[in-house]
Amino acid sequence: MSVFTKIITGEIPSYKVAEDDNFIAFLDINPNAKGHTLVVSKKEEDKIFDLSKEEYNSLMDFSYRVAKAIEKTIACKRVGMSVIGLEVPHVHVHLIPLNAMADIQFSQKVKLSNEEFIALAESISKNFE
Amino acid sequence: MSVFTKIITGEIPSYKVAEDDNFIAFLDINPNAKGHTLVVSKKEEDKIFDLSKEEYNSLMDFSYRVAKAIEKTIACKRVGMSVIGLEVPHVHVHLIPLNAMADIQFSQKVKLSNEEFIALAESISKNFE
Repeated sequence: MSVFTKIITGEIPSYKVAEDDNFIAFLDINPNAKGHTLVVSKKEEDKIFDLSKEEYNSLMDFSYRVAKAIEKTIACKRVGMSVIGLEVPHVHVHLIPLNAMADIQFSQKVKLSNEEFIALAESISKNFE
Repeated sequence: MSVFTKIITGEIPSYKVAEDDNFIAFLDINPNAKGHTLVVSKKEEDKIFDLSKEEYNSLMDFSYRVAKAIEKTIACKRVGMSVIGLEVPHVHVHLIPLNAMADIQFSQKVKLSNEEFIALAESISKNFE
């Protein structure tokens, strides 16, 4: 069972931003930038392009809605999107508020307190449509 | 007019992989890894999440088909996807064959000859469905 499935089942707590029957979005706890969010398919597939076109299209559609909520919440030049998957073998889309190239290179990390994560997840969640 | 629009109109040549009425895919000439491809919206929009949901969904659908063609052509652990857009203000999706994290960090580059680019574009194009 992947760490993301444990988050989906509630075994591991998360700062949840949005959820529907097929997908969940929560804050990355080791964020590149404030507002860095992961969108995860509840189906435990490893590689994004192994999802059926329908599943993939639904995931992308859900990610668009989450990205719009992040844009409304966090001051940034734009929201970037990245799908890598070399570390956790469970499809996830990184949505990251960008101000500089370094924000999407997974080399720098920012620290937030538990209270900051809670407030941030709540703010993004309120902007999710 | 963006550099990508110049590629779309043919003013600047490119190693084309796939094209339809709304999108074009061609090889990145300064690739992170062999097979690094850009999928570009013919509509000259700056930010991906400023596309309408329908335009964005079509772009993602087209990108899935290109990613599948890359996977069939290039030996790699998986194909990664990244949308950044801080440099060229015209929506483009990076599809990159990944073997290591560095392949998606835009820090290392590989060199290919003109003949290698031509052969590569032709191979990916043949696998595009």
